[in-house]
Amino acid sequence: MTNRVDIKRTAQILLGRDDILLLCHKNPDGDTLGSAAALCHGLISLGKRCAVCCHNTIPEKYDHLRIPVYDGSFPVRYTVSVDVAGENLLGDSLSCYAGKIDLCVDHHASNSRYAQNLCLYSDRPAAAQIIYELLKEMQVEITPFIADCIYTGLITDTGCFRYSSTTPETLETGARLMRLGADHKGLVEKFFMSKSRKSVQLEQYALNNLEYYFDGKFAFLPLTSQALETIQPLPTDIDGLSSMARDFEGVQVSVLAKQTGENRYKISVRTGEEADACRIAAAFGGGGHLRAAGCEICGDMEYVRQSIIKEVERSLCR
Amino acid sequence: MTNRVDIKRTAQILLGRDDILLLCHKNPDGDTLGSAAALCHGLISLGKRCAVCCHNTIPEKYDHLRIPVYDGSFPVRYTVSVDVAGENLLGDSLSCYAGKIDLCVDHHASNSRYAQNLCLYSDRPAAAQIIYELLKEMQVEITPFIADCIYTGLITDTGCFRYSSTTPETLETGARLMRLGADHKGLVEKFFMSKSRKSVQLEQYALNNLEYYFDGKFAFLPLTSQALETIQPLPTDIDGLSSMARDFEGVQVSVLAKQTGENRYKISVRTGEEADACRIAAAFGGGGHLRAAGCEICGDMEYVRQSIIKEVERSLCR
Repeated sequence: MTNRVDIKRTAQILLGRDDILLLCHKNPDGDTLGSAAALCHGLISLGKRCAVCCHNTIPEKYDHLRIPVYDGSFPVRYTVSVDVAGENLLGDSLSCYAGKIDLCVDHHASNSRYAQNLCLYSDRPAAAQIIYELLKEMQVEITPFIADCIYTGLITDTGCFRYSSTTPETLETGARLMRLGADHKGLVEKFFMSKSRKSVQLEQYALNNLEYYFDGKFAFLPLTSQALETIQPLPTDIDGLSSMARDFEGVQVSVLAKQTGENRYKISVRTGEEADACRIAAAFGGGGHLRAAGCEICGDMEYVRQSIIKEVERSLCR
Repeated sequence: MTNRVDIKRTAQILLGRDDILLLCHKNPDGDTLGSAAALCHGLISLGKRCAVCCHNTIPEKYDHLRIPVYDGSFPVRYTVSVDVAGENLLGDSLSCYAGKIDLCVDHHASNSRYAQNLCLYSDRPAAAQIIYELLKEMQVEITPFIADCIYTGLITDTGCFRYSSTTPETLETGARLMRLGADHKGLVEKFFMSKSRKSVQLEQYALNNLEYYFDGKFAFLPLTSQALETIQPLPTDIDGLSSMARDFEGVQVSVLAKQTGENRYKISVRTGEEADACRIAAAFGGGGHLRAAGCEICGDMEYVRQSIIKEVERSLCR
């Protein structure tokens, strides 16, 4: 049984522990990494031994967080997951920690309550906002560098304060971090204002190849192996592509069909208010959230197109 | 000679006046309109007669500001320009006010000091941030509706807190406005998350027609009358186009040259760290900010292209 703890109690617990390992979720984003980095540097500044583990290699983009990756140099005596909604999200190489996590700090309402102690605030748009409060509670000195780590989590999980999850407290936390020295300009530029050449090329391809159906309510983008070979994008270049058309006026369903083999397509579904992405993906054996889901379909492009069109039509008629 | 006044003095002046006309700049954006709307509604709430004038028809997108457009129903006894850096920016139909403006509230460092009294804070990223302080100083009750007007100016002029001009005070003002009832979700969706069909078409045109110079540091987009006739965009559809390429990796200067007549082009300049937009625009008699400026050039497209290339080269070599 999970024991719910508030920020004050979480601070007390952490202050009483040492040799702490922090775990991030797989396919890590700015929030899990920024939060873990801030907490790790904070605990180290209090004289503790602490390091971070993640299933994946940490992408270069996050080098500025200077994450101390766990190298076995101390025996782990306390394990804390950060921004990890379920143990299955730790990834294969960290699956050995399943059932053994002492504390989880998270903001996902869907948290599966796997840790012994759970510090969960689902009204915070980023785990980093909780980490900020936790560090303050532990009286960690928030240096400009630690402020940068927290700010990274805060802006990446809120689209730099754009998402509807943003609250007045989020903006106030942002203001405080800026005052503490967070590099607003540099971090925003890094995460929101420097589209790679490849992702610009992909956007151009997308705009020239988008297909609209059902009075423009459905936007379908076929991304063939041929196009991928021509453009040669990194996986991170493709990140924004699936949700691009959802922000177009009138579009309720946006689907990206990315060819991954001779007759194999990875499908990303994004929806607005009028359709359920998870339901569309589930029709093909996939799953996900209400507004973002995915699946795989085997067959040629025309089969994929027609299958999806049929399912989207059903979804829009509900 | 212009008389510089602070917010406190500006509040006193306005409190002592009545029958006030507020002037916006031509080709109005969210900041000039949101600021004028907030100030107008605030002054009306204090029992004064007040209305707004703009050279252009106010775009539908701003209907939520419910701007009381001046209809001649009261004799104007005090004239205030809002977010207008120079009298030439009032537009032809308001040129009769040149030399007769009693007060200017602005945040452009390049303000040409044309008004009798000037309330200028160039460290504020939006005129709306000044208007918020001014309304507070005048003890206007900031209703959720007035908060929406101010928030419109604040987010449109800061890219929803993304631009480097954003300060801790900007985020704090945003937080306060949200607490006062500003509709963060609705306004962000309206201005940043619902691209019109026409603006998507313009983006496609842009990606297919962008010209790169100086190792990709300069991106030039010619937008001809012919393209405009084909696409038929509203002025608001073109808003985002000028800064689009600035967010591309490596681009330091992004210029949009929009044809406005047979041999006439409206130039929008956007820059990164390495170049001064205002300096480039100033070379053609224009002006603006360090990162965003504009001017007009007469001549054919090839003349415009070559003139700008020369000036950008100079700017990048500085």
